[in-house]
Amino acid sequence: MTHHVVVVGAGFAGLQLVKGLAGAGCRVTLIDQRNHHLFQPLLYQVATTLLSTSEIAWPIRRVLRNRPDVTTLLARVTGVDRVTQRVTLENGTTVSYDTLVLATGARHAYFGHDEWEADAPGLKTLEDATTIRRRLLLAFERAEIASDPAERDANLTFAIIGGGPTGVELAGIVADLAHRVLPREFRAIDTRTARIMLIEAGPRLLSVFAPKLSDYAAAALERRGVQVLTGRPVTQVSRDQVVIGDQPVPCRTVIWAAGVQASPAANWLGAEADRAGRVMVNAHLTLPDDPQVFVLGDTAHVETDGKPVPGLAPAAKQQGQYAASVIRARLAGKPLPAPFRYVHRGNLATIGRNAAVIDYGRFRLTGGLAWWIWGIAHIYFLIGVRSRLAVGINWLWSFLSRQNPARLITQKETGRRG
Amino acid sequence: MTHHVVVVGAGFAGLQLVKGLAGAGCRVTLIDQRNHHLFQPLLYQVATTLLSTSEIAWPIRRVLRNRPDVTTLLARVTGVDRVTQRVTLENGTTVSYDTLVLATGARHAYFGHDEWEADAPGLKTLEDATTIRRRLLLAFERAEIASDPAERDANLTFAIIGGGPTGVELAGIVADLAHRVLPREFRAIDTRTARIMLIEAGPRLLSVFAPKLSDYAAAALERRGVQVLTGRPVTQVSRDQVVIGDQPVPCRTVIWAAGVQASPAANWLGAEADRAGRVMVNAHLTLPDDPQVFVLGDTAHVETDGKPVPGLAPAAKQQGQYAASVIRARLAGKPLPAPFRYVHRGNLATIGRNAAVIDYGRFRLTGGLAWWIWGIAHIYFLIGVRSRLAVGINWLWSFLSRQNPARLITQKETGRRG
Repeated sequence: MTHHVVVVGAGFAGLQLVKGLAGAGCRVTLIDQRNHHLFQPLLYQVATTLLSTSEIAWPIRRVLRNRPDVTTLLARVTGVDRVTQRVTLENGTTVSYDTLVLATGARHAYFGHDEWEADAPGLKTLEDATTIRRRLLLAFERAEIASDPAERDANLTFAIIGGGPTGVELAGIVADLAHRVLPREFRAIDTRTARIMLIEAGPRLLSVFAPKLSDYAAAALERRGVQVLTGRPVTQVSRDQVVIGDQPVPCRTVIWAAGVQASPAANWLGAEADRAGRVMVNAHLTLPDDPQVFVLGDTAHVETDGKPVPGLAPAAKQQGQYAASVIRARLAGKPLPAPFRYVHRGNLATIGRNAAVIDYGRFRLTGGLAWWIWGIAHIYFLIGVRSRLAVGINWLWSFLSRQNPARLITQKETGRRG
Repeated sequence: MTHHVVVVGAGFAGLQLVKGLAGAGCRVTLIDQRNHHLFQPLLYQVATTLLSTSEIAWPIRRVLRNRPDVTTLLARVTGVDRVTQRVTLENGTTVSYDTLVLATGARHAYFGHDEWEADAPGLKTLEDATTIRRRLLLAFERAEIASDPAERDANLTFAIIGGGPTGVELAGIVADLAHRVLPREFRAIDTRTARIMLIEAGPRLLSVFAPKLSDYAAAALERRGVQVLTGRPVTQVSRDQVVIGDQPVPCRTVIWAAGVQASPAANWLGAEADRAGRVMVNAHLTLPDDPQVFVLGDTAHVETDGKPVPGLAPAAKQQGQYAASVIRARLAGKPLPAPFRYVHRGNLATIGRNAAVIDYGRFRLTGGLAWWIWGIAHIYFLIGVRSRLAVGINWLWSFLSRQNPARLITQKETGRRG
């Protein structure tokens, strides 16, 4: 009976692992609750009308169509039984495994304020992105028809909570949208008067970057008309306002980019987890007491040189690659590879049109050149010629025409009134 | 005070009218409940994974950004007061008009069986298209994980109700999807065994086309594996089955392409309407008793040579163009143009990859050449270089690669369980 590897989650870690198992002589079943692999690093551009959903997501089956050893299942996993070695699916059926790989990613965390989610959506899925896009665009529409000036101003006020890369990237494009793309299209309002707040509880933006890059990012955002508020915790979020410290600000659009929480894999496994819910794994990325169970990516707590590995796409891919090499070594009866070591390839973030920051440790870069390098790097990482073409054309076109191509409002509001 | 023209609906008729009023010296307010103009003739390709939503829809504001005389409002109209000459919006505000143009289109009609809508969605909006796309793709996914053969077969059974152009075009692409695109991607099922039924109550498909073209379409669809059932009324639709005549067929995916009903404009106006709810207008496309109120497109009942003008995009455009000329003549104090006459430019329909029918009366064409002519004609009618490029590239790419680019399942099910 062929060795059966069950992989839950087709993100960067899971997909990389499956690719790494090509020709390894095992059967692979890849389970995901969505039908597509998502290129999350560009999700904020879908939310901000620069890209379409179809340009950064690919049907998992299509990506793996030439892998007869791989079966793809669209299903939600509800539990794992490590004794009988079975994964339970939502529809009640079970899938038995010889080796289990959990790479189920993370969701945004509201630090004990889950009631904020309806009014402050985070950005992890395509649905999150289209929800945020709809709210951004509807806010300008409501301002255009508002008779009450206070209502108009509240609709022209945007709060982005969290000063990490995602928050910085969102704030930069929202500012470009208000100042460069929309002005000519509205008659009653001047979209350039929109107030865009980037709110960070910590002392500076991009805390994982070098301080001088944080300063550059803050200055670049302020030049674009973004109000950068550091050292200010958000104490309350509701449909009508956001409270910064003790100062309430009327605001109709809030985006959450502040924190993440690992998926419930730890509960499924009954395994030890860190405060963010990430499963503690050993240097071979398996449970200490169960070498048949790997946990990868944002779902796992791994350390290199005593520092936890960050939740970045390259880290997830490296873990997928490594876990594949461990499984291959076991199947071939070869000695296991050396313990996993994360190789940090640096941090990148864009700050809207023609500005970005790159921190490769020794090599640091800001401005237009960094933006072009960032863009070319990301196009390289997309799957397939079509997506690379589409994204490249979109970026070049919006760079030249100052127009954003993905501006459709679709789907009704859910989760909150109006 | 400048003459104020209020236009409700930014479809083919409304947008054409606004374009026709360029430089006419009046103020125009264009009201639509969506933020985009939709190219409905290609909507079925969004539903069947060939095109993305952003490729056949354009933000109305963006299309009209160079028209300072035009104000665009994203709002839902709830009524018209012809005495005070005011349009009421959902938020309670009113907009007063000197001339009112209603071009609010049509929705699908279920012939007194509105309860069928949840299980048999029609195809009029982008949301309709993404709903149908999701159900098509989920059916194959559910078949792949089904343990019960009956459940698997029901998920591999597709019913398209209505043998007009939309039904024929949907059936053709669904067949291509099952027979050409998906087979290599599934392991447990053979998608080529999918049963695709095109059900028409009348004696033949494409009843507005010449009989020999109907015969060609039926034969071409059957060659593609579509089961063409003419002269069979659907008597019941539920979540689990469709009843054809008195024969129940287990079926999880039903698409409605059978009938349309005009929007409630007639009720707003308190005007006479035909059985399909279309407002009766005179040869100048206005209410007989109210020359300041125009009704256009699918919302209006107009006749040329005693025959009602069909609900086609070219007909809507011709009416928009004509109404603009009437308004311009009035503003300029010139004599009114001759009564409206619809010029029929023929009927086109595709039957999946590399097959189409064209009926220009004297000139009739079928097969591959007709398909290429159809494609080039439709690309020509799209708005902007970007969309033409994107659609052209998608069609060529899927024609050559036998892959459909728009295969994402997004958004949760609403309106029915699961």
